[in-house]
This record gives sequence, structure tokens and C-alpha cells, in this order.
Amino acid sequence: MALIKKSVTGMKDIMPDEMMIRDYVTSLVKETYETFGFTPIETPAVEHIENLLSKQGGENEKLIFKILKRGEKLVLDGDVTEESLVDSGLRYDLTVPLSRYYASHADKLPSPFKALQIGPVWRADRPQKGRFRQFVQCDIDILGDPTPLAETELITATTTLLSKLGFKGFTVRINDRRILRAMAAYSGFSEEDFDRVFIILDKMDKIGAEGVREDLVASGFDRECADKYMDLFADKGGIDYIGELGQKLAGFLDEGCADGLTGIIRSAERVKEGDFSIVFDPTLVRGMSYYTGTIFEITMEGFGGSVAGGGRYDEMIGKFTGNKVCACGFSIGFERIITILMDKGFKVPGSKDRYAFLIEKGADPDFTASVMEEAAKKRSEGACVIVAMMNKNKRFQKEQLEKEGIKADNIKEFYHSDFKN
Amino acid sequence: MALIKKSVTGMKDIMPDEMMIRDYVTSLVKETYETFGFTPIETPAVEHIENLLSKQGGENEKLIFKILKRGEKLVLDGDVTEESLVDSGLRYDLTVPLSRYYASHADKLPSPFKALQIGPVWRADRPQKGRFRQFVQCDIDILGDPTPLAETELITATTTLLSKLGFKGFTVRINDRRILRAMAAYSGFSEEDFDRVFIILDKMDKIGAEGVREDLVASGFDRECADKYMDLFADKGGIDYIGELGQKLAGFLDEGCADGLTGIIRSAERVKEGDFSIVFDPTLVRGMSYYTGTIFEITMEGFGGSVAGGGRYDEMIGKFTGNKVCACGFSIGFERIITILMDKGFKVPGSKDRYAFLIEKGADPDFTASVMEEAAKKRSEGACVIVAMMNKNKRFQKEQLEKEGIKADNIKEFYHSDFKN
Repeated sequence: MALIKKSVTGMKDIMPDEMMIRDYVTSLVKETYETFGFTPIETPAVEHIENLLSKQGGENEKLIFKILKRGEKLVLDGDVTEESLVDSGLRYDLTVPLSRYYASHADKLPSPFKALQIGPVWRADRPQKGRFRQFVQCDIDILGDPTPLAETELITATTTLLSKLGFKGFTVRINDRRILRAMAAYSGFSEEDFDRVFIILDKMDKIGAEGVREDLVASGFDRECADKYMDLFADKGGIDYIGELGQKLAGFLDEGCADGLTGIIRSAERVKEGDFSIVFDPTLVRGMSYYTGTIFEITMEGFGGSVAGGGRYDEMIGKFTGNKVCACGFSIGFERIITILMDKGFKVPGSKDRYAFLIEKGADPDFTASVMEEAAKKRSEGACVIVAMMNKNKRFQKEQLEKEGIKADNIKEFYHSDFKN
Repeated sequence: MALIKKSVTGMKDIMPDEMMIRDYVTSLVKETYETFGFTPIETPAVEHIENLLSKQGGENEKLIFKILKRGEKLVLDGDVTEESLVDSGLRYDLTVPLSRYYASHADKLPSPFKALQIGPVWRADRPQKGRFRQFVQCDIDILGDPTPLAETELITATTTLLSKLGFKGFTVRINDRRILRAMAAYSGFSEEDFDRVFIILDKMDKIGAEGVREDLVASGFDRECADKYMDLFADKGGIDYIGELGQKLAGFLDEGCADGLTGIIRSAERVKEGDFSIVFDPTLVRGMSYYTGTIFEITMEGFGGSVAGGGRYDEMIGKFTGNKVCACGFSIGFERIITILMDKGFKVPGSKDRYAFLIEKGADPDFTASVMEEAAKKRSEGACVIVAMMNKNKRFQKEQLEKEGIKADNIKEFYHSDFKN
């Protein structure tokens, strides 16, 4: 009986050349974040269905791969519903499992707890180019630190990593959900309209300030509000504008919020190494509703969308666990970064010298062993050595080995007669 | 709404101390096997249900976590069956996905293809101590090499890895399924009884030769067969016995089989580095029915069960794909090795120096930045530095940091006043 050769819809087999880059990025991520004191942890791929459907996952909750109950728990006669059939599902992000992990183990973890997670998540999204139903997420989170040190550390760690990966000229954009809301309130929008306003504001990159203004009016908002709102964005650059805004928005904005944001940017600027910029961007929205304070995103010229994003979410873990725990996280777009590196023809640095030792057909065990001993010697000097029997078509075999990146000079042939003398 | 804090039944959260060891072993596995020319690959966690139920998985097929169809494909009214509800499942091993991968991509892969896979698999086994429903498997396989070089390389690579992990005095036991069968045929058992005979033989460790003899007779086999069979095991040691057996079993055994096995052991002996032994063990059975030739297992004094196992399975991929592809694999018991290392109190070698920098509460952004600059300097020298605000209970905070393995001398406090001068 023949097997289905293609992988399941929307999930991919990873070929050796991509795998090398993925492994390299993964180990650089671990190495870099660990020097900042982030601790790797891991949670199971399978989560309780109740946790996955707890309303923290937004649209992702519609995309869950659900797992059938087993044994006696699975009842197939009578009225069956999805709820009656299912007890668990594949995680769609690493934040829900992190909340559960922290709720379960906080007494054994340091405070603040700096967690590093790299692992696959699953979403039954419509398959499309470059978007897969199993993909790796890579999150760092600091739980239990209410101070701006958390944000500064997250930004410094993430930008250090991107710089080590050879990325240059990228932009860290920072805003605060509270400033975002205060600007809307100050302009006269009512709170229940904020989400609609922000969805329009989020298009600023694409349609410009005039586009946003007209879109707001077309959506039924007062022109006066729209005008007042757009005036606030007239001077959107510069760290000094945060302080100005703070004064202008007095009464609408938590005290200390503007100073806090200014402080984060100033510290991150001072500590920064590498070629990138950090800017205040009052138009930055970030979709997820769980953000409560600072939000940030990293964009790169020439690559649509962001390569990293995150923010502060002080309420989420408390909603899950009953105890309020402040939290702040930054997530790099692992798959996007791999795609960019593959497209650039990225070569993993410091790769080992590679050799192939080809053994004459019909070699006896002693001869084979002597070639393997030579291979062991080379390996102990740090090289990779493929030992293989010569194929019938030796020329084709050597061509293949060269395609795999082994230099012609490093392909050695071993014949019995060479050793017999 | 509170979330379920415990992980799903039988799957575990991995705590920081275990994670460090897992990461270390994983990177040592990759580094070691890559010097032997094994190429890391990865397949999705989710497989077609048809492939999982293709009869290659033996008992594991009863333990599949099955995934519900989605959208319009899921029909809940009328007669529902497991088959009608499910289109995929979580993989229960890495061998079925490897066969699919090879069938799908062989034209883009070198020949022979030496694959390395490390990844989680899922089995809905009855939960028990030390046995989990999600666990990591770690396989190396050589596809397309019919010669004993494949076996020798697998044994050398695996024992090199175990030696690097500090294991000593372990035993590589080798047999061949064809010798196993020839010994049974020679003794007069009929082919349809072989599996029952082997299940009894497999208990030799526990019940001894006399126990096996009596068990065979008690199971209804002729005493004469049982006696003739047990005589063959009287001299079970020594590589020379393979040749003797080869002569004795002439007519029952493929020509060249005994010489092949002798050759594998001789080459592996000659190339071996590290403190372990390689023995011919005619009582070695290995459960899976797909093995066609050499089989091997590694056992360690004091740890029941094996820490690695594998063998040649020349027919399996062909059954899947239609084209015969010879194959040979060796799998280490990743979870078992982690447990042994944890129990031994294993310390990851070459860990970085670790520091904690504690900042006075209420520090301004410039002061915070100056501490972070000092941290960055230390990190660039190769250290790990945790930067944190001082907690109210500083003494407790420092105790916690020491528990995490940071030396008291490496915990530094930073006060505004130190810098103001």
C-alpha cells in the first residue's frame, strides 16, 4: 500500500540547506538571549481546549487544530458536537502556554522571571505563499518587572540578536497604548470607537495622513475630531515630542507615562550597539487587545511587515491565574527572518571543513576500518567527513558531493592497493 | 475565567534546570553527528492519518492523537465514525515521516542519504512514571547503502556521542535477524512459530537459559527442538562463534551473512574510541517486525532497558513508496539519557560566568543605561548578566540568585550615589 508522499496541507518538510540556517539561527538566539539572563523553557505542543478557547487568543481561536478524545471518553452515538468530541488542541501561540506555565510553577521560578521560548505553533490558516500551518515562534518575556528596565532589556536583547544576524539599518518603532488612547480621547472620539479609529490609523503607512483623515470622516466620525486628531500627528517624529504630547494630553494620560516612554527610548539609545534607529511612532497600533502599555515593532526597509513585535501586557496573566502579574514580551518573526536569510543566500559562518572519503567497492572490513580511522582523525581536528562506498557512477557521485559543498580537493578515493603495499 | 494550570495529562512542562541539559545534549548530538556527515532534516508534527495507519507502526498505531477535520469537511450529523471525523494525527515516531520525506524528495537528496532527526513524537500511552505522552526521539538513518559500512558508521557515531556525554562501560550488543531466524529453523521450529519463540528467547536476561528452555516446552514446543535450540546458545560469547554458527547453520542462513556481521564488529572494534565493548549477542531480538538484517542495542550497567537501539530495515521504505530503498538506522533514547544525566547531577560543561547587576529603585534612565552599558561590556567578554531592579526584600532576592547558580561575589549592587560623583 503506497503512502501519501506530500506533507499535510500547509505544513512543510524542511530541506537540509534551510535546516542548516534554522539550526544556526536557533543556536544564536539561545546563546544571545542567555547572556541577557533569559532562561529557556518548554511547554507541550498540546494544550487543554479550555485554555485555548479562553478569549486571549483573538482570531487565532478560530484556527485551532483540535484533538479527538480517546478511549471511553469519546462518545460517537447520540448528539455529537465539536465540544463533545474534543479535549485538547495544538497551541496557536506561546503566550497562552507561558501564562499556564507561570501560573503552575511561579513558586519555583525567580522573580522577575525572564523566559525564552522557541517552538512550533499551529494555525489552520488558509494556506498561502510563505505562510505555513506549522511555524516556529520565538518569544522572550519578562514576568514580574513593572519598571521600564523590562522594555529596555527586551529591546536591547532583540536588537543585539538582529545585529549578530547581520541585519542593519532597521527601525525600532515604539509607542504606548495609553498614549494611543489618550490621543483619541483628547480629539473627542468616544471610547467604544477607539478600536475602529485605530484600525484606520494603522493604515497611515499606506494611505498617508490625508487618507486617514478622509477615511475617518467617511466612516462617520466628526470632521472636527478627525482634524484635531490629525493635528496631533503633524509632528510625529522626535523623542522630544513625547514630552510635548504628555503636556498636551494632561488629564487624558496617566502621569509618568510620557516620561517612562522617553526614558525607555533614551536608555535603549545609549546602550545600543549596531546600526539601527529607535523612534517614537505615535501611529503604531499593534493588533492584540491584551497590550496595556508600551508597544514596539521592528521594521526593515525592503521587507513589508515587521520582523519583530511586542509590548507590555500587565493584565493577561492575572486574567488567567487570578493573581495580577505584570509582563512584557518581544517576539521575533523567526520564519520571516529565515526567509529573508534564505533569499539573501546567507551562508552559516564558521562552517567546518568538509571532506568525503570514498572507499573502493568490495573492501574488506580491515580496509574499511583503516579508512574510518583516518576519518576519525580528521573529525577530531574539527572537520566533517562523509565516508561512503564508491558508487558505480563515481563521476556523478563526486559531482553530487561537490553540489553539497565539498571541494573537489577534499574528495579522496581509497583503494585497497594503496594500503596493501 | 481561570485557566487550567496543570499541563495536559502525561505531557510535561520543562523546567529551566532540565532545559539546560536538554539543550546541551541536543547541540552535542547535532555537532557530533554532523561531523559524520549526517544532515539534519525536519518533518511536520502532523501526518496524514492514512500514513500513520499504514501498518508500519505496530502497536503505536493504537496510540495516535487524532486531529479533527476542519470547516466544511467536518460533518457531524448522520453516522459519525472516527474515520469520518479525522484527517490527520500527531506522528508517533520519526521513521514513518522519514519514509514519506524520502519518497517525496529523494531526487534532491544525496545518495546514500544520511539523515539526522531530533524532534517530539506523541503517543497516548497509559501515563506512568518517567514515561510521557510527548517525548523527543533522536534518530540517525542511512538510506541507500546496502554495505556493512552503514552499520559500522551508525555504531561509531552513536558510541562517539555517548562517550562525549561521559558514558563509560556500556555494551553494544549486535545480532542479525537472519541469524535469529536461521537458529530457530535449524532447531526445527516452524516459521509461523518464530515470533512466539523470539518472545520467549527475549526473556533470557531475566529467566536464564534453563528458564527459556522450560518456557518453550511449557508453551507446547517439542523438547527436542528446545534442546537443540538451547545448545546453540551454550557458547553465546565471542566474535569467533559467529563464523562457527555460520557453518553450522549452512542451508538455513544467507551466504555472507555471518561474514558480514563479523566484519561489522571487527571494523567497529578497530575504529572505536572510548571505554565500551561490542559483543555478538545471539539472544538479541528487537521487537519491531520491520528489521531485515543486522540489529543492535546499547545497554548500560545499572540502567534497566536499552539507551539506544536500531537495525537494518531494507523493505520498509519500499513498502511505502514502491521503490525498494535499503535503510539502516540507530536511535538513542533521548529522554532516558536526559533522565540518567539529571539523576547523576550532570553539570553542563563550559557554562558561562554568570553575574547579576541590581539597580537601586527609582533609578533614572541615564543611570539605568550606565549599568546596562557595564552589563553589555561583560557580555561581550562572554559572560551572562542578569540586570534587575532591587526588590524590596533584597536579601531574599540575592538568595534566589545564588540558588540559580550565581556566586555571591558576582552579584553587584548599583546605587545612584556611586555614579553621581
